[in-house]
Amino acid sequence: MTRTAAIIGGGLIGGGWAARFLLNGWNVRVFDPDPEAQRKIGEVLENARAAMPGLYDMALPEEGALSFHNAIAETVDGVAWVQESVPERLEIKHKVFAEVQAHLDSEAVIGSSTSGFKPSELQQGAKDPTQILVTHPFNPVYLLPLIEVVPGDTCDPRAVEWAKEVLTGIGMYPLVVRKEIDAHIADRFLEAVWREALWLVRDGIATTEEIDDAIRMGFGLRWAQMGLFETYRIAGGEAGMRHFIAQFGPCLTWPWTRLMDVPELTDELVDQIASQSDAQSGQHSIRDLERIRDANLVGMMRSLKARDWGAGALMNAHDSVLNATRRVPETLDDIADLARPVLTLDRAVPLDWTDYNGHMNEARYLQAFGDASDRLMQIVGCTPDYIASGGSYFTAETHIRHMGEVHAGARIRVETQVLSGAGKTMHLFHRIYEGDRELATGEHMLIHVSLETRRASDPAPQVAAPLARLAAAHAVLERPAGAGAAIGQR
Amino acid sequence: MTRTAAIIGGGLIGGGWAARFLLNGWNVRVFDPDPEAQRKIGEVLENARAAMPGLYDMALPEEGALSFHNAIAETVDGVAWVQESVPERLEIKHKVFAEVQAHLDSEAVIGSSTSGFKPSELQQGAKDPTQILVTHPFNPVYLLPLIEVVPGDTCDPRAVEWAKEVLTGIGMYPLVVRKEIDAHIADRFLEAVWREALWLVRDGIATTEEIDDAIRMGFGLRWAQMGLFETYRIAGGEAGMRHFIAQFGPCLTWPWTRLMDVPELTDELVDQIASQSDAQSGQHSIRDLERIRDANLVGMMRSLKARDWGAGALMNAHDSVLNATRRVPETLDDIADLARPVLTLDRAVPLDWTDYNGHMNEARYLQAFGDASDRLMQIVGCTPDYIASGGSYFTAETHIRHMGEVHAGARIRVETQVLSGAGKTMHLFHRIYEGDRELATGEHMLIHVSLETRRASDPAPQVAAPLARLAAAHAVLERPAGAGAAIGQR
Repeated sequence: MTRTAAIIGGGLIGGGWAARFLLNGWNVRVFDPDPEAQRKIGEVLENARAAMPGLYDMALPEEGALSFHNAIAETVDGVAWVQESVPERLEIKHKVFAEVQAHLDSEAVIGSSTSGFKPSELQQGAKDPTQILVTHPFNPVYLLPLIEVVPGDTCDPRAVEWAKEVLTGIGMYPLVVRKEIDAHIADRFLEAVWREALWLVRDGIATTEEIDDAIRMGFGLRWAQMGLFETYRIAGGEAGMRHFIAQFGPCLTWPWTRLMDVPELTDELVDQIASQSDAQSGQHSIRDLERIRDANLVGMMRSLKARDWGAGALMNAHDSVLNATRRVPETLDDIADLARPVLTLDRAVPLDWTDYNGHMNEARYLQAFGDASDRLMQIVGCTPDYIASGGSYFTAETHIRHMGEVHAGARIRVETQVLSGAGKTMHLFHRIYEGDRELATGEHMLIHVSLETRRASDPAPQVAAPLARLAAAHAVLERPAGAGAAIGQR
Repeated sequence: MTRTAAIIGGGLIGGGWAARFLLNGWNVRVFDPDPEAQRKIGEVLENARAAMPGLYDMALPEEGALSFHNAIAETVDGVAWVQESVPERLEIKHKVFAEVQAHLDSEAVIGSSTSGFKPSELQQGAKDPTQILVTHPFNPVYLLPLIEVVPGDTCDPRAVEWAKEVLTGIGMYPLVVRKEIDAHIADRFLEAVWREALWLVRDGIATTEEIDDAIRMGFGLRWAQMGLFETYRIAGGEAGMRHFIAQFGPCLTWPWTRLMDVPELTDELVDQIASQSDAQSGQHSIRDLERIRDANLVGMMRSLKARDWGAGALMNAHDSVLNATRRVPETLDDIADLARPVLTLDRAVPLDWTDYNGHMNEARYLQAFGDASDRLMQIVGCTPDYIASGGSYFTAETHIRHMGEVHAGARIRVETQVLSGAGKTMHLFHRIYEGDRELATGEHMLIHVSLETRRASDPAPQVAAPLARLAAAHAVLERPAGAGAAIGQR
């Protein structure tokens, strides 16, 4: 099926969907009668292009084509996916579905971004209710991986499988909700907290800023990486979940009556919240807040990626999808021409790699070179399994020469030449480029060590032989200008 | 007042308090009749020593002395702070307070870790109710900064000020709750989510793992850096908070009856939760989960620190407290002897600076050297203000030689020698040490640039003059072995 998605409704959520599909190589057609739709989606796309590519340690595919359409008919003609993000009124959604289904292929899926309606409500009166399901995302859609997939009883199981495949393919985490329920799962929690927060503001217990701090200085940090139950499992200690429940269960019946009631949204309460929010965040425009949020999220998600945990583990898995063609080789066999420098890194510069000078920080050059060295080690057989068996390479010496600057979002690559690779040493020369522009070189002397003695040792044959083969092939290459130079020698 | 704290009750929470005080240089006395208390606190301390020091970019003060005591009388004698973390039963807490107050200085504060009792309840019948208040922390106490301070109407305002000063001094974020209320603030949110989660498990809507994923793949990431209101402010777009409430307010009255009721903790429900939690997390021991959590938190909190946002901004502020003596100089005037290498970095190796080889990653050496170069720039007048005015130094070339390994938690320092500093260039030689052991050297050629043209330019006099002065003073120093060498020359 063609990788084209139709976005019906192009607000903040529809724009986020458009960005996620486009940056993962899908073509995107947008239908939205709002004359501002093109500008609004452009703003979301700008944010997404700055933030999303650098999440991964592999370059995203080439961006798809974006087009805007005046009629639903041509928008959905031949597409594999329709994402509906129109206002939360059932009669509008039913009208959209009717028009979509008049022109849509039967194998395509219609996902609804609804946070409030159940699939059975959406499917009511549809020409083909089996291709409609809830696919509820979270803002910013181009960064947060969670997507609640709620098929209900009527949706075709093949549509659910296709939905999971498509959503996983664009880096999302499809959480299939087995029984339909009002507000799905996550929004039930958000709603519970929102009600409680409204009471606290209304009763003068806390301001919006104090409430936000009560979240982000405490349990918000926990929940970004473990959820509720895993966190409480730890709190229960070795005695476990059962002990935790025994200890804290009785609190449930304490007289927290506020939790049981709904505050009335009087003009006074709305004023109170709006003015507190201005005092808290009014010094930043919404665009600024979006960029601050995105940079925070990218930094935190990349730190979870380095730990291979939660949202970060998902991103690591997506790297393999992005490198499915092995453009960045994993073994010597993946390399077409051994007598050329090896592509050892191909990625975008993440938001959190830049510094106060507005460009990629020097330490991140060495991170890129280090990642490139890791890749070359893997290619010659120094794999995680080999390392677990007790051998690895440590860097003994590094020489970096900077020739140009590069900024967040830019696509960079490293090409690596093996200057020598025999005995205990491996001598590498990395060049980092943005397009044709050479940004820096990194010359590195690595020593093979025994991880037990932490001393130099000979690599095992399964590493020594491929390394020797690559070094021999690279011997025909010209010695790079700058190799072997000291600081200040050009 | 002497910087000694008494910890009454040494479980997970008391242990976390002990760790926070100790690692911030306070002496800690522990009273807990549990024969296992010493072992339990030892385990918490081990976690804290691994995770907490590296949170900051400054070394923590020397650890205080830890002692265990058999009687409350000697535990609290002469201390400035008593932290009560005994079981959540009011009669036990009253008994403890009575014994504590029989021996405590009147200026000291008694903070209670209670999550459920209000200060007015704790203060009932006390000899001096004005020195008792709630100081409610969040697990892990040695990492999460939030501390709810609830004085109630009776507590002495001077005690509240002293509490804020002490808690800020140990790196916490005191959130003063102006009106006492059941469960303070954060736990009201946790409780609301917990109830809802119990219903979802009980009704077979989602498993514990699915609920945790619904949190950590979505809004949990948002809440680690902005709270509820700032996040919704963004969702409202330029139209703001008022628009958001108008759009989503009506949802409040939807028939989500589950939110209004309390699930009964039947044996069946407890079994269901415990077995789902085993399936989800049972492959990790609780100690493993603690270490995973701590490494995740340190990585995320450090990434917020790099953005100077939320919990990270708090940590940056704490760096100034930690460097109050200017041991690491901020200007030339802070340096006692200009004719010696300058201390430009003094910190612990953070958990997220290590790699698959189990030691500090090569890129983090350059991060440490880069931070040291930044510090030297600041010392010679290339401050954030100067950079904002349009001049800065960019690194042109770097040569790193590794001599030893170092591990997470170790205290490292960088000493910097200015090889030359005149015209457009600044030539630095950094040595990084753990104690007396030299780990690596970094030789760096920096070029002064105009941030407008991005080309080399002469520094302004307020930078050129101090740099020349320091370079002249360093001219008497021996040229370091290894300076000016190419790779492979030793």
